[in-house]
Amino acid sequence: MINLKTNVTPIKVSRKKIEILDQRLLPHEVVWISCGDTEQVADAINNMSVRGAVSIGIVAAYGYYFGVQKIIQSNKRVTLKSLERIEKKLNKARPTAINLMWATKRMRDFAEKFVSTKSYQPMELLLALYNEACEIHEAEANLCLTMAHNSTQAISKIVSRNKMRILTHCNTGALATCGIGTALGVIRYFAAMDRVEMVYAGETRPFLQGSRLTAYELGKEKIPHKIIVDSMAAFLMQKGEIDFVIVGADRITKNGDVANKIGTYSLSVLAKAHKIPFFVVAPKSTFDFSLARGNEIPIEERPASEVTHLGDKLVASRSKVVNYSFDITPRENITELLTENGAYNFN
Amino acid sequence: MINLKTNVTPIKVSRKKIEILDQRLLPHEVVWISCGDTEQVADAINNMSVRGAVSIGIVAAYGYYFGVQKIIQSNKRVTLKSLERIEKKLNKARPTAINLMWATKRMRDFAEKFVSTKSYQPMELLLALYNEACEIHEAEANLCLTMAHNSTQAISKIVSRNKMRILTHCNTGALATCGIGTALGVIRYFAAMDRVEMVYAGETRPFLQGSRLTAYELGKEKIPHKIIVDSMAAFLMQKGEIDFVIVGADRITKNGDVANKIGTYSLSVLAKAHKIPFFVVAPKSTFDFSLARGNEIPIEERPASEVTHLGDKLVASRSKVVNYSFDITPRENITELLTENGAYNFN
Repeated sequence: MINLKTNVTPIKVSRKKIEILDQRLLPHEVVWISCGDTEQVADAINNMSVRGAVSIGIVAAYGYYFGVQKIIQSNKRVTLKSLERIEKKLNKARPTAINLMWATKRMRDFAEKFVSTKSYQPMELLLALYNEACEIHEAEANLCLTMAHNSTQAISKIVSRNKMRILTHCNTGALATCGIGTALGVIRYFAAMDRVEMVYAGETRPFLQGSRLTAYELGKEKIPHKIIVDSMAAFLMQKGEIDFVIVGADRITKNGDVANKIGTYSLSVLAKAHKIPFFVVAPKSTFDFSLARGNEIPIEERPASEVTHLGDKLVASRSKVVNYSFDITPRENITELLTENGAYNFN
Repeated sequence: MINLKTNVTPIKVSRKKIEILDQRLLPHEVVWISCGDTEQVADAINNMSVRGAVSIGIVAAYGYYFGVQKIIQSNKRVTLKSLERIEKKLNKARPTAINLMWATKRMRDFAEKFVSTKSYQPMELLLALYNEACEIHEAEANLCLTMAHNSTQAISKIVSRNKMRILTHCNTGALATCGIGTALGVIRYFAAMDRVEMVYAGETRPFLQGSRLTAYELGKEKIPHKIIVDSMAAFLMQKGEIDFVIVGADRITKNGDVANKIGTYSLSVLAKAHKIPFFVVAPKSTFDFSLARGNEIPIEERPASEVTHLGDKLVASRSKVVNYSFDITPRENITELLTENGAYNFN
């Protein structure tokens, strides 16, 4: 395994506060938002200062810790009630990425168990909770590397070309994961093996995670890449310029359907029509076994202004907008679903 | 036939000058650019102040007239040489839309014939050329109405639903044609028949002809519509919310392949995969019988800044960009190719 590292990081953490890199302003401005309580963390998730399923989960874990820091007391009953409230507050911030709910549930379960012990001591709970958040953070970051290693092996069995032309969507890199990334981690890994000819980064309207964030990360790593508008992907496929498509996931249901950034389903249909392999890379924390099928996943609708405005500037007509933030890619459009254990086996 | 009219117009014409509505600034600012010579007209076409295949052709015809106005003299040989130069200058402005070359060739052929007569009089040529440009203008505008009437009939044979949910791409309306439009003309016609439930206007990155211009025209006509990002089209198709897709064309080859705004090919593949009818609407001046297949059409590449900037503002990373302005949709992805004579028969 190549010991890949990246200098790109979306958060800085201490026991007093979490500093969140405002990804809405990247790559033009580097602004860190300081958060010391649950509300501030929930806001940063909701307004997309921090985004990316894995990063959202990690930040929510710290947000949970800061919430408990504010309410903690020796009365067990009161503390337990607050533990539930903090979880709900964070979960409301964004509905689609399951990692958020996964991380807050893990933190709450941990805290409840701790509070229920006979020897419960508030200060000890706080220390233990902080460590638990750090553990989630570190584990998710490490998973990226294992996932990238296993994914490059699985992909190499399907894509024979040595130097590859790769299409990706949205941002699934360090900013989205606090590690080397999911799909972008795989690309980093292939680049370290000198196997990347070109990465095409779909700009990912409306929020431009591709042209702003993925291009920024690829630039920092000196990986050859070009930005395209999302609707150009099909034309590049038609011209034979894409060897495979690789994306991340915000939630995966029991049957293998994938919720991911709007435009992912489109790419999966196009890849299938052009007989191009389509890979999804996500840690197992992205699975939601409580849902049977993709159409059960709640799809976030975001404000029209994301489409009609850029910053404060109106760029479109003042018309109504449909702005689903995610779409559902059915299992049958996915060549392989890659996790930290390699290709996922649904049988 | 319903006698449809629209108040939206992209040009105002007199014998002294043509005023071109700057479509780069719409819908926020209404600025008219005054052009009195070929260079100014070619610039306005090249920088996309005026765009849309049919409008480009009409404006080029007037641009040709203004060019002749500047050079005209009684010496036949000198005049004939200039007639060729003016055509070349205009044709260079944009390479893909054939209507440009069609209009300038018609103007040049007309002028050459006129100059070659024994009784050649410069002032008479100027008057005749102006009338020729007006005739192209009026004929193309009138064609839109006939085309819309015939197209609604052809589409009604294939799409049975009374109130229809229609997806369109780019702008093919009054701004693009100086008439009621090609694809958007058909939508206007269906709306006049009260058969439009919803028009989804793909925003059409990078130039946003959809969210800026189509949404603007639909708003003016009070036709129900919503803007979507281009990559959302597939998701709406998957949800069963699109009855048909309708687009224009910039050039059509002998075998029926269509060059049109980037993203058109993508929609055609997606429509096919979802078994949704896909219609192309274009006057016969859009056909280029000198080319056998779509891959022979020159595809314009435009500046990276169209993707990385919005106005003067950098919105993306400073990365390289692929910015093809058009793509090629093969005949087999097109349900019907609709012209002023109704569904085109390739046999």
